[in-house]
Amino acid sequence: MNASQRKLAEGVLYTDMYELTMAQLYFRMGMHEMNAHFEHFFRNYPDYGSHQAGYCINAGLEWFADWVEEACFGDAEIECLRNQKQRSGKPMFDDDFLGWLRQQCLRDHFTIQAVPEGRVVHPNVPLTVVQGPLALAQIMESSLLNRINFQTLIATKAARVREAGCRRMMIEFGLRRAQDRGGNAGTRAAMIGGADFSSNTGISYALGYPAKGTHAHSMVQAFMALGEGELAAFRAYSEVFPDDCLLLVDTINTLESGVPNAIKVFEELKKKGHKPLGIRLDSGDLAHLSIQAARMLNAAGFEDTVILLSNQLDEMVVWQIVSQIRDEARKYGLDPDHLINRLAYGVGTRLVTSRGQGALDGVYKLTALEKNQEWIPAIKVSETPEKIINPGFKNVWRIYNGLNHATADLMGMQDEDPDQMDPLELRHPSDREIRRTISRKDIDHIEPLLTDIIKDGRMVYEHPGIDEMRQVRDQDLDRLDSGVKRLVNPHIYHVSLTPRLWQLKRELVEKRGQIR
Amino acid sequence: MNASQRKLAEGVLYTDMYELTMAQLYFRMGMHEMNAHFEHFFRNYPDYGSHQAGYCINAGLEWFADWVEEACFGDAEIECLRNQKQRSGKPMFDDDFLGWLRQQCLRDHFTIQAVPEGRVVHPNVPLTVVQGPLALAQIMESSLLNRINFQTLIATKAARVREAGCRRMMIEFGLRRAQDRGGNAGTRAAMIGGADFSSNTGISYALGYPAKGTHAHSMVQAFMALGEGELAAFRAYSEVFPDDCLLLVDTINTLESGVPNAIKVFEELKKKGHKPLGIRLDSGDLAHLSIQAARMLNAAGFEDTVILLSNQLDEMVVWQIVSQIRDEARKYGLDPDHLINRLAYGVGTRLVTSRGQGALDGVYKLTALEKNQEWIPAIKVSETPEKIINPGFKNVWRIYNGLNHATADLMGMQDEDPDQMDPLELRHPSDREIRRTISRKDIDHIEPLLTDIIKDGRMVYEHPGIDEMRQVRDQDLDRLDSGVKRLVNPHIYHVSLTPRLWQLKRELVEKRGQIR
Repeated sequence: MNASQRKLAEGVLYTDMYELTMAQLYFRMGMHEMNAHFEHFFRNYPDYGSHQAGYCINAGLEWFADWVEEACFGDAEIECLRNQKQRSGKPMFDDDFLGWLRQQCLRDHFTIQAVPEGRVVHPNVPLTVVQGPLALAQIMESSLLNRINFQTLIATKAARVREAGCRRMMIEFGLRRAQDRGGNAGTRAAMIGGADFSSNTGISYALGYPAKGTHAHSMVQAFMALGEGELAAFRAYSEVFPDDCLLLVDTINTLESGVPNAIKVFEELKKKGHKPLGIRLDSGDLAHLSIQAARMLNAAGFEDTVILLSNQLDEMVVWQIVSQIRDEARKYGLDPDHLINRLAYGVGTRLVTSRGQGALDGVYKLTALEKNQEWIPAIKVSETPEKIINPGFKNVWRIYNGLNHATADLMGMQDEDPDQMDPLELRHPSDREIRRTISRKDIDHIEPLLTDIIKDGRMVYEHPGIDEMRQVRDQDLDRLDSGVKRLVNPHIYHVSLTPRLWQLKRELVEKRGQIR
Repeated sequence: MNASQRKLAEGVLYTDMYELTMAQLYFRMGMHEMNAHFEHFFRNYPDYGSHQAGYCINAGLEWFADWVEEACFGDAEIECLRNQKQRSGKPMFDDDFLGWLRQQCLRDHFTIQAVPEGRVVHPNVPLTVVQGPLALAQIMESSLLNRINFQTLIATKAARVREAGCRRMMIEFGLRRAQDRGGNAGTRAAMIGGADFSSNTGISYALGYPAKGTHAHSMVQAFMALGEGELAAFRAYSEVFPDDCLLLVDTINTLESGVPNAIKVFEELKKKGHKPLGIRLDSGDLAHLSIQAARMLNAAGFEDTVILLSNQLDEMVVWQIVSQIRDEARKYGLDPDHLINRLAYGVGTRLVTSRGQGALDGVYKLTALEKNQEWIPAIKVSETPEKIINPGFKNVWRIYNGLNHATADLMGMQDEDPDQMDPLELRHPSDREIRRTISRKDIDHIEPLLTDIIKDGRMVYEHPGIDEMRQVRDQDLDRLDSGVKRLVNPHIYHVSLTPRLWQLKRELVEKRGQIR
């Protein structure tokens, strides 16, 4: 693919064809410039099979906004569309429609609100709210979902691995198993959600972080092929990187060869006034090997060295390793907390592919259309009550209880103010029997969740750096009940409707039942 | 991220940091320009849990080659590396190494052989063979694995879905659930492996195909919000696209509203001399709804319309739908084959995320190093015999039996010629007890699998178009035993070593046991 083909394939036509066929239909019906309101939300937390998320970490917004900034219909895009044919051979798109589309830049037409990146988020709550001309809002759908679904999925997985690993150092290693160029988005999302660093060199630098990495098995193999051994390879590495010497010890045999050779090299480094960094274990029973390697390192006076673990790690494997160390370290004369605190994690494949649940089911739904200066709520009914969308031009708040813990997210009408409601009545989105009442005195504060990103075609939001997103994330995680953060079978966080929104939804569902 | 940051993050530094630390080590040891031989292969077929692949479809080579063409160390790349620090604050990379690296372009130094895209491939067989200077060959690893692992994974999944769906029309719909820009690679791989078309507009055009798509639920919703119904929405669509009218019939109620409304519109189209295309079912029991919708369409005289199915399809769901139709269609007076032949499949999330197994475990291993004009085989031993690599500078052939079916892939030494061996002895790669002997008269022909891609720094391969890759794929699939193609618990295809290669491997394993 040459550069111009790639530009075409990553620009405004990075979208599904049906967005464009619908756009022409709206154009033909005179509906294309009607002001429309679309909401992006996900329906369910990731369910990894044997374990499930009880929260997500929002991510991907900045890269979506970057795409919007550049998404314009120029000559190449129009040429592509002009070449699409119906079965009859007639063009799919007519000249008048293409004439209108030509020179349209998505950004110029929109107001977009969103929940900032790094925040804890929950199902059915609008995370990105797009308001603008119907035809162009439709074209925006595919790319929005593509960017935000994926990064939110990965940031969530990263947060879980970090929690399982007691928030110790975590490095993202997934580039080689990611989806082509999507690897960079995976690195970014992991760094927002829970990874401290990544092995992915270019994107780490672009994001303002050093990349991390030492050596592979192939380095030891190369020395061996030349008739030298693991010790020679380690020694060479220590000479080139005396202040960052972390050695991969499982090329031959971890406990019989790798660790003893590493210790020899560490002793040489120490004599020269350098402080060795540690070892990496990449195969075998990582909990058992951590304990045995720690004993050997401690006996040699290297209690402070890091033990970096890798090899198909995810939150369950890390949790298992930590648990096994807590159970067994003392038998070998080790303080389990000391060992757990010196562990670090290199997490690759299972992080960037979100092992167990490879997609977040984020969707983008029409919720209102403006006609004669009035917003008309739109709905999609479904035979599954949970899949009926929450209609209308809405707002969304987070309710904090007396402990300053988030206790519910609340959706209501644009003109409602939950600060004025006492008691606050929370309705379940689909089950008419479930409701909850909170007295104002039990509420610490109520926080609106949406922020302006683009206002009337102007970018008004300054995207925070990743450090700032991480602060937001940790603040949100610290204000979640621990039951919600449980790795397995988490407590279900409340996402609710105000009585007025609930009533509107009921009315629309009943009314829609009659129109065919 | 601005354009120059993105360029940096997608160029030669789209690699893991340890490739660069190792490169500096090789530079310091005077090993950086040693001629090295790396092989890329995968260890296991994708195992999706309840079902398993018995073959893969090779894909991703062209996009990897495109990356190699542009992967150069310029000022921005060197600046990034100059800014990497050790813990002590000293630079990670020294000026002499960076001076050597500056202006290096990967392509200039390599000879690369590979198995062409679209071909059926098996574990442990080298699919990409890289020969060039050790330090630069190492830097190539991450991007090679990133490109080829993913596209091979998706092409394989696509081939399986297509086989399950009796090779009927299949459209890739996964953009919204793919990994950011990786979505385009997903589309390409799906089109190589089994999809006929994609909804992804820009990349389809770049690859030489029309994009496919009609309308979403939101179009019907928009008409409903404005007080009109599904019928009005369908009618509008049929007026704008009279020759490509495919209607999504499940926004309200498939059988009570959607299909009857679609039939009304089809009758109007027919009167005007147009041939309606069909309907799309996107929820509910797709087998049951297909049967009922087909009955209604047939009764109205639209036996030839397509029924496009979508909603979380994968090979197992498609297989189940086809099986259920075979069992039940006759009860409703339908010919099951006629119905199966009019089905088409829109396959999204589960295709582009390879549901059940989100990564192919492709690796890139050093297998030989040249010293004093002699190739020294390299090996990595492992406690798991299957993970011991096959050493040396090898060749690989496919053996076809008397039925012209592929019966084994054979790896041997570079200077061996299996055409000269009678009988042909095939050794199991790790189990010394398993061997197989084939008499020359039972062999139809023996085919070398590797093709030259880059030779001494010159691109010598012309990448075929996707149509050509599909021909190669179908030819290979037709020459596989049906047991190997089984969706569940497939027969294991033989991947073997020549006796000489087997002997070399044994000797190296034994010798390596003694070097520490």
